[in-house]
Amino acid sequence: MASPGSGFWSFGSEDGSGDPENSGTARAWCQVAQKFTGGIGNKLCALLYGDAEKPAESGGSQPLRTTSRKAACACNQKPCSCPKAEVNYAFLHATDLLPACDGERPTLAFLQDVMDILLQYVVKSFDRSTKVIDFHYPNELLQEYNWELADQPQNLEEILMHCQTTLKYAIKTGHPRYFNQLSTGLDMVGLAADWLTSTANTNMFTYEIAPVFVLLEYVTLKKMREIIGWPGGSGDGIFSPGGAISNMYAMLIARFKMFPEVKEKGMAAIPKLIAFTSEHSHFSLKKGAAALGIGTDSVILIKCDERGKMIPSDLERRILEAKQKGFVPFLVSATAGTTVYGAFDPLLAVADICKKYKIWMHVDAAWGGGLLMSRKHKWKLSGVERANSVTWNPHKMMGVPLQCSALLVREEGLMQSCNQMHASYLFQQDKHYDLSYDTGDKALQCGRHVDVFKLWLMWRAKGTTGFEAHIDKCLELAEYLYNIIKNREGYEMVFDGKPQHTNVCFWYVPPSLRVLDNNEERMSRLSKVAPVIKARMMEYGTTMVSYQPLGDKVNFFRMVISNPAATHQDIDFLIEEIERLGQDL
Amino acid sequence: MASPGSGFWSFGSEDGSGDPENSGTARAWCQVAQKFTGGIGNKLCALLYGDAEKPAESGGSQPLRTTSRKAACACNQKPCSCPKAEVNYAFLHATDLLPACDGERPTLAFLQDVMDILLQYVVKSFDRSTKVIDFHYPNELLQEYNWELADQPQNLEEILMHCQTTLKYAIKTGHPRYFNQLSTGLDMVGLAADWLTSTANTNMFTYEIAPVFVLLEYVTLKKMREIIGWPGGSGDGIFSPGGAISNMYAMLIARFKMFPEVKEKGMAAIPKLIAFTSEHSHFSLKKGAAALGIGTDSVILIKCDERGKMIPSDLERRILEAKQKGFVPFLVSATAGTTVYGAFDPLLAVADICKKYKIWMHVDAAWGGGLLMSRKHKWKLSGVERANSVTWNPHKMMGVPLQCSALLVREEGLMQSCNQMHASYLFQQDKHYDLSYDTGDKALQCGRHVDVFKLWLMWRAKGTTGFEAHIDKCLELAEYLYNIIKNREGYEMVFDGKPQHTNVCFWYVPPSLRVLDNNEERMSRLSKVAPVIKARMMEYGTTMVSYQPLGDKVNFFRMVISNPAATHQDIDFLIEEIERLGQDL
Repeated sequence: MASPGSGFWSFGSEDGSGDPENSGTARAWCQVAQKFTGGIGNKLCALLYGDAEKPAESGGSQPLRTTSRKAACACNQKPCSCPKAEVNYAFLHATDLLPACDGERPTLAFLQDVMDILLQYVVKSFDRSTKVIDFHYPNELLQEYNWELADQPQNLEEILMHCQTTLKYAIKTGHPRYFNQLSTGLDMVGLAADWLTSTANTNMFTYEIAPVFVLLEYVTLKKMREIIGWPGGSGDGIFSPGGAISNMYAMLIARFKMFPEVKEKGMAAIPKLIAFTSEHSHFSLKKGAAALGIGTDSVILIKCDERGKMIPSDLERRILEAKQKGFVPFLVSATAGTTVYGAFDPLLAVADICKKYKIWMHVDAAWGGGLLMSRKHKWKLSGVERANSVTWNPHKMMGVPLQCSALLVREEGLMQSCNQMHASYLFQQDKHYDLSYDTGDKALQCGRHVDVFKLWLMWRAKGTTGFEAHIDKCLELAEYLYNIIKNREGYEMVFDGKPQHTNVCFWYVPPSLRVLDNNEERMSRLSKVAPVIKARMMEYGTTMVSYQPLGDKVNFFRMVISNPAATHQDIDFLIEEIERLGQDL
Repeated sequence: MASPGSGFWSFGSEDGSGDPENSGTARAWCQVAQKFTGGIGNKLCALLYGDAEKPAESGGSQPLRTTSRKAACACNQKPCSCPKAEVNYAFLHATDLLPACDGERPTLAFLQDVMDILLQYVVKSFDRSTKVIDFHYPNELLQEYNWELADQPQNLEEILMHCQTTLKYAIKTGHPRYFNQLSTGLDMVGLAADWLTSTANTNMFTYEIAPVFVLLEYVTLKKMREIIGWPGGSGDGIFSPGGAISNMYAMLIARFKMFPEVKEKGMAAIPKLIAFTSEHSHFSLKKGAAALGIGTDSVILIKCDERGKMIPSDLERRILEAKQKGFVPFLVSATAGTTVYGAFDPLLAVADICKKYKIWMHVDAAWGGGLLMSRKHKWKLSGVERANSVTWNPHKMMGVPLQCSALLVREEGLMQSCNQMHASYLFQQDKHYDLSYDTGDKALQCGRHVDVFKLWLMWRAKGTTGFEAHIDKCLELAEYLYNIIKNREGYEMVFDGKPQHTNVCFWYVPPSLRVLDNNEERMSRLSKVAPVIKARMMEYGTTMVSYQPLGDKVNFFRMVISNPAATHQDIDFLIEEIERLGQDL
């Protein structure tokens, strides 16, 4: 049994700096503990030495691990069986791990040591005294390490170091001050579920090889459809690799619904189709149209009001215009939660228009779908129940680890008809169980990653009310930010009024620009402010928030809050940091 | 510090059945150990009690965990601070974990306990005395458990039990006797890398938020292109969510290369396109054509020889036929490793034809690409270096955890031109680093899962030579199987000659059918044999292998070997098991 690994707590037993009340006894136990596998010994020691539990600042742990591991044993048997020796990873390779004969012990030690590295990273992710990012330019990172792939294997010590190095330069996406994307935060139950998913290492195409996951997908999609408001949760759906693909699915199915012959005969056999979406909608609508052979010119961008909401009268006007040209309007994609402004298109008005002209109504609620979990905010999606399809990404506002995007479809069976190819080697018709649980033939993909388990397990752990609390809190934080900056010197809001989602869009105007007239020169200088502040943020590593231009508006900050770790203090910090980094510009 | 969890080793300390030499001392240490977090205490105890390390047979561990956890403490403080008390998960919820205040301790305990469950599963996965699957019919599974999602949260004890239940009914895809899919096996380094990927929880679209992963994708794709044989590894590529999507990318790029106006104007603006692939090729080619608006009728299936290889003369004939009709041949997709037969199309002959008629040559090497790592077998892909694009799925023959599929493209920049939409909120042009590392705008997806790290880390751990050894071994096992059954009573080969890949296709003919003439009745009865044997295999849970009909050939077994855990004895076992389960039919 004697082959303990060296966890990240190991420096505690190295330097002996702890001073617990009964350190003598602790030291004795610690020596005993060194007999055991999987980093346990070092953890025990570190716990006994109290302060050692606190992870070192970045960069500190790696040399210590290495030292600890190398110092323990000087023999070169593999694995070493010297009394009290550690697992000497320098003499172990992947071939020594399971399924190797006698691979169980080194495997458990190795995986436990990896886990220790991950746990250290998790703890540091939530520590405000650590950096969000230890930024290096691409050429620096490429030069600093040898990342190349070679003919010969590396030993497991090197593999563990690669894990540490990779995490050293990673963005801490769970850090309380990481606001850069719509997907932020690191949920502990979701993380555990994703580890389990990796361990189960299977594929969603059939019940045969993913029985539980297929059932959980069924249960979860049904629940999501109930929340959307489709009677009895009936309908169809799938978890797809991201919102862009979910939107592409919607476009594909809408086209098939109207012209099923397109599947065999292609676009040449059907009239010219036109899709409509707002000028603030996600670029994936155009990307999808390009891919599906519809063409980006056939995606008409409808005007938005000053808050970024689609203007229904413009939608109707453009539909009529298309019809007059002899084209066939086949899809309106309304957005519930636009990427930049967080705007919600008026779904009820859009639904009326779609009904009137018999057009497939899709709602891209990739970002805003989460608000359906909140009794306080779900009214913003009123009308979503009238959609034919909905994109909803739990990996955004609901904090599920990446990726987790659902496409929900109101009509059952349509996805199957649209996409099935009857591959007999996969979807045998004479199998011994109910084939309706095989999901593969309704997907565009063949193999499909298991994305449902993390959402399902988080839902069990939080309950709908837990998601609701998270969402309400994020919205409240956005309002808090809005209230602070709306009248604060040096800030200009991109649009008026309190945010509907957690998007808060604003310019920070440095003192030197405040005195200028609102002319081209000022705009030109203002456009350079956000990029410089952002670059400084990343170099300091203190926080991260996104910026972009939009239409005629020069670069502005788009703050979004989906991070469950964020607090009022982190919002305050963001403001102070923007001012600290931007006041000289 | 006092709040140890309860690992799967815990039953050792419960029943005290171990009998180590110095059990008195062990017991004392064990009591001490109970003070510590993260399942450590129980692990220590179990290790001291020797035999407890061996996992219980299926179903045994769950009640014991529960008992152990509940018995420890009767107070209802959360978390309990009683001396020697365990973490009482029954009183803990997701809200007690990080980023909660004081969440570090319960988080580490919880994640460690999840890890213990996963480690138990990993060890059992490789244990031939455990079942590959504990099969239940969908309605049984739905009735046996309540999988529904509710308003209220569940406690962490329930969450841990869900993890156990989910794995109890999972397929052990790493089990040495799991041969059901092209992707089998569970690589320990790959698994560790996938856990790390989950923990880093980021997105591939920009260097900004995935610096290391973006660089590793660059390095790894370049290496794969070098192995394909493109000079200096130049070209382009992406990791996509599976081979079907990779093939769709190829079709999309080929179309764009010939008619770039299709991006804006759609299929209506260009001539009728025709794609060619063999009748044994993967169904994703047709699926892609349906999605891209080309239509399945425009995918011409080329005849194969008796070994499943595309016949070049038939390809040329069909190209000429299409051209005579005024259609435009734009893509030939040759297959390197067909799904059922494992056949390699004659790539050099196909390349000559593509060159002659100026057609994009794609090679779907999703399954066969791995053979490029083997000096002994790579000749089977001779000519792949002349392809314009290649699909290569390391999650198949190379044993990388799901998903890991690469599309490699010879011409650089084409993917970007084809797919870019210039979303300014994501791909800001005034960022402070080299924007060529932002990969998002060349993808169909917006968010993209990190699929590269597991492949990269495995490659470092195995070296190219490690992949080669794995592939050579799998091919050798396939030949071993072929040699056993080719002349064995009761077996008929679907095609003659030794396998080119690890696919071995055969009928098992039960004694009752051996005496029948080769007529329709025999065929009809033979078609039912494989499904029944397969159903029995799953009910016993002893092994899993796929079957299917193909063309005029009734259901036959398709054995494939990509599982690194499989040995000659497992092949022997498979044969014995087929005979045991099928002899009465």
